[in-house]
Amino acid sequence: MTTTRRGMAAGLGGALLIGATTQVLAQAADPLPSWRPGPRRQALIDFVAAVTTTGGPDFVPPAERIAVFDNDGTLWVEQPVYTQLLFILDRIKALAPQNPDWQQDPVFRAAIAGDLRGVAAGGMEGLMRLSGAAQAGNSPEEFRRVAAGWLATARDAKWGRPYTALVYQPMLEALAFLRANGFTTFIVSGGGVEFVRAFSQQAYGIPPHQVVGTTFALKPGEADGRITLTREPRIDFVDDGPGKPVGISRHIGARPIAAFGNSDGDYQMLRYVTEGPGRRLAMIVHHDDAAREYAYDRESHVGRLDRALNEAPARGWQVISMRDDWSRIFP
Amino acid sequence: MTTTRRGMAAGLGGALLIGATTQVLAQAADPLPSWRPGPRRQALIDFVAAVTTTGGPDFVPPAERIAVFDNDGTLWVEQPVYTQLLFILDRIKALAPQNPDWQQDPVFRAAIAGDLRGVAAGGMEGLMRLSGAAQAGNSPEEFRRVAAGWLATARDAKWGRPYTALVYQPMLEALAFLRANGFTTFIVSGGGVEFVRAFSQQAYGIPPHQVVGTTFALKPGEADGRITLTREPRIDFVDDGPGKPVGISRHIGARPIAAFGNSDGDYQMLRYVTEGPGRRLAMIVHHDDAAREYAYDRESHVGRLDRALNEAPARGWQVISMRDDWSRIFP
Repeated sequence: MTTTRRGMAAGLGGALLIGATTQVLAQAADPLPSWRPGPRRQALIDFVAAVTTTGGPDFVPPAERIAVFDNDGTLWVEQPVYTQLLFILDRIKALAPQNPDWQQDPVFRAAIAGDLRGVAAGGMEGLMRLSGAAQAGNSPEEFRRVAAGWLATARDAKWGRPYTALVYQPMLEALAFLRANGFTTFIVSGGGVEFVRAFSQQAYGIPPHQVVGTTFALKPGEADGRITLTREPRIDFVDDGPGKPVGISRHIGARPIAAFGNSDGDYQMLRYVTEGPGRRLAMIVHHDDAAREYAYDRESHVGRLDRALNEAPARGWQVISMRDDWSRIFP
Repeated sequence: MTTTRRGMAAGLGGALLIGATTQVLAQAADPLPSWRPGPRRQALIDFVAAVTTTGGPDFVPPAERIAVFDNDGTLWVEQPVYTQLLFILDRIKALAPQNPDWQQDPVFRAAIAGDLRGVAAGGMEGLMRLSGAAQAGNSPEEFRRVAAGWLATARDAKWGRPYTALVYQPMLEALAFLRANGFTTFIVSGGGVEFVRAFSQQAYGIPPHQVVGTTFALKPGEADGRITLTREPRIDFVDDGPGKPVGISRHIGARPIAAFGNSDGDYQMLRYVTEGPGRRLAMIVHHDDAAREYAYDRESHVGRLDRALNEAPARGWQVISMRDDWSRIFP
């Protein structure tokens, strides 16, 4: 949606008509300019046409038009390491002066020194301790402010741009295209729900209540005569792999009809969506573009894509080639 | 929204214009016809005017206009016992022939005999076992079908009407009024989330993903080559009392600016909402209408209202008198 188009719509009929008018204009313009003509672009367009054709065999009422999107590697860059991990490490460094005892702990010492190999040596247990120390002990509102502040200033080492600028333009177009056709769009991320909520509205137009993610336990209490909520350094729900259908069912309360992912962490979500009755769409972002982004799949430690890639043809999942199907990567 | 009005709107400008046109018509008509003139009706109208006045000191952007509603006793009748408990007891009776061993258990025997006193004698532990046996072991989708089927046929003993007809007309008007003014409306219920989702769209126009409630643990698995989700007979989150701010934060990810409740189970939610900065609205439905519905508060076992009633004046919470403030109770 450009400012000009919004301006035209407002001029035509006043504020109340913007919604209806822009829908008409959006249908006239190409909704997917960064998708090259080909089977993937066509699959997306055909699916939307099928489920929105009133009286057609695949028609789905708007209330049931739900699409779910993984975040890391599907909506924004996840290499060389997840952005949230970089946030955690920066946060540990920032908090280190107030926590001199951290120097006694090899994993924390490695994090403070920026030694990723040393952090990795601590395994998942070490990472969870870092994650809790960096992100818990505050309220969800406080945490979101801290995360938003970091995102506003941190820069990706390869491109020198903010992480929120490293979102995939074709996916922004897919989100807008689906929403213009009556879909409600959700993020279903293995990342922390409050971390993703810190930028989802601004980066994707997705409000906080349409973000499902991994959660810390949240402890209610009272201090200074006010209700408090405190994030505890303990993960009580992992929204990844088999957890994604659980997160979807609990939060959304309906089986989506479209899913977008990029790794085996999305495998169960893609199956859950496409095993439902009626017309379904599943698309996998395949990172095969070393020139413009990264090329990785089966052997990658981050965003490993193996089983879902193997089963995609038999399950009717569309594998998007970033190199061939997208004319543009970033906005 | 009457059929006539919809027809007029469609005639004026075609399907795309219905949304915008009915909004104009709704603003012209009285949005709260079942609310008698007085301080409560005025408080609701003034609040909405304040937060929607662009450039005004209390303006809130639409994305942050979030209102939360308790369900039992706030949106529909909760006396003489919660509707979900009646569902559980009916379900136990229906499943009893397939579970002959239940006859060995005093609590189950009481439930099958419709002996509420005997059920109560089993305490919370007995009730939880009944609740699990009646409602778990299936998928969320299967459970929702069972609940919807029961709601379609069950009738309230006092009025002989379906429970979904025993919703409060003034609250339906408040929901519509808020939504017409850019609010997103959520239910935050102590009841089971899937039970409420079985009727929330039809009864209140609230989609499943805008319902927060108490949850059973959900176990992911696979059977016959398909992903399965199984409701386990174990409650893993209680969305009541201090749990309501937790449920709101986790699900909605923002502090609402308006809250509606009726009992001490809503006390923390009302505080959480009104302790936020800026203009806030909290309203309590006070059941003081024995003639048209029920009269109960401090002494009631169901929907006890004591502390929240005491603190309402000092906290600026509006106490709605069903008897005086509402000209009509049911649709």
